[in-house]
Amino acid sequence: MNAIAKGRLIGVGTGPGDPELLTLKAVRALAEADVVAHFAKRGNNSNARAIVGAHFRPDLIELPLLYPVTTEIDKEHSDYRSQIADFYEESAERVAEHLSAGRMVAVLSEGDPLFYGSYMHLHVRLAHRFPTEVIPGVTAMSGCWSATGLPIVQGDDVLTVLPGTMSEFELTRRLADTDAAVIMKVGRNLPKIRRALEATDKLARAVYVERGTMSGGVSMRLADKQDDKAPYFAIVLVAGWSGRPEALVESGA
Amino acid sequence: MNAIAKGRLIGVGTGPGDPELLTLKAVRALAEADVVAHFAKRGNNSNARAIVGAHFRPDLIELPLLYPVTTEIDKEHSDYRSQIADFYEESAERVAEHLSAGRMVAVLSEGDPLFYGSYMHLHVRLAHRFPTEVIPGVTAMSGCWSATGLPIVQGDDVLTVLPGTMSEFELTRRLADTDAAVIMKVGRNLPKIRRALEATDKLARAVYVERGTMSGGVSMRLADKQDDKAPYFAIVLVAGWSGRPEALVESGA
Repeated sequence: MNAIAKGRLIGVGTGPGDPELLTLKAVRALAEADVVAHFAKRGNNSNARAIVGAHFRPDLIELPLLYPVTTEIDKEHSDYRSQIADFYEESAERVAEHLSAGRMVAVLSEGDPLFYGSYMHLHVRLAHRFPTEVIPGVTAMSGCWSATGLPIVQGDDVLTVLPGTMSEFELTRRLADTDAAVIMKVGRNLPKIRRALEATDKLARAVYVERGTMSGGVSMRLADKQDDKAPYFAIVLVAGWSGRPEALVESGA
Repeated sequence: MNAIAKGRLIGVGTGPGDPELLTLKAVRALAEADVVAHFAKRGNNSNARAIVGAHFRPDLIELPLLYPVTTEIDKEHSDYRSQIADFYEESAERVAEHLSAGRMVAVLSEGDPLFYGSYMHLHVRLAHRFPTEVIPGVTAMSGCWSATGLPIVQGDDVLTVLPGTMSEFELTRRLADTDAAVIMKVGRNLPKIRRALEATDKLARAVYVERGTMSGGVSMRLADKQDDKAPYFAIVLVAGWSGRPEALVESGA
């Protein structure tokens, strides 16, 4: 390898959790990569790493990128914003060192890399400096509606993907104005989400999913969920396709 | 295999076009299936079949399900609606015959089976009668934003998925009210989509993608596209993440 060799950056979507939902292309990228980088909270193992670990080569260099803070802190707070910006800058530079040395670096991303993924923070800092490829993955939301067998959108349906963090007013307004919805970042926002669904007559159709395609996954009609405990990464699904064959609506969830 | 054996129905997402974007689980399902069913227009080969054909067993039974009509006919027309409903009923019964005979039937679906997929029409007619599993796939839209390296949504962004078939008024209203958008079913709707993007100050950010992850795929800024010719399955993407690091916005498309 000569001195001017430039490495390659690969954003690798690992899918929603089931290791079998990895793509053939992701498996190949892991077989070829010199370095695998993955984001994780300090003290936790990376979920993405757990999904793909079986495909790691023995001589692989692992580069864990450990968040300085957790995700449920107020993101508008300036301390959080500067800490996290510094962290992404520093992470990008750690990856860039390997790329500059001519190594192929695969950055793991749960679900799909460019769909709310942490990988994006490296992508925007590195893709203009190094040859870059993004390998899409099955999203968490696809994993969830597939695990529950819920037909989410058909024909000319509008789908809206909403963060559960938004205000009750905004959630309600947007739920009233869509055929189908995916509400992410549920966590402590569940009581508010429930009220917004009730106000828009969509609670009966809403399905709550926890750990979609992973072992120990849970799904139920949200109306049947007795408590308001939910992990941050739980998802609420509201299916569209109002015109689907009548007799079969019950088979959905 | 005894007389009361019940077959299994598997909806198999084949991903957006690149055969390497098939999941390991889809590959296993194809290796185990007795029958593979796929939808196609009469006279055309199934795209989904082309994606996964390399994984077919030699002794596999193929069940092509051929649409009686094309997709750009007015869907509100009653002839269309009754013809297509009959077709799905008849297709479901053809699949049910194999399931009743104890066979495992994999139904191919481009992208993700429950996300605007034809498979859904079989799912709602059969999932309450036979053991059913849905294997999610990488969606066409994920394939498109990954192929162009376009970070589509981050943080608390709202994403809206819209059919290009809706009225200009509705398209404009909904584009004005979202952070990021995916506009599907472009085809002859492109001039209208362009006007709606212009009216909402989003044309400069819009990216046009044709045949996303397939060979011969095309992507460009929509503003740079000189004509209004577009296939029905082309996609227009508008990225969110307004707060991404400033200097790097240009690396997007």
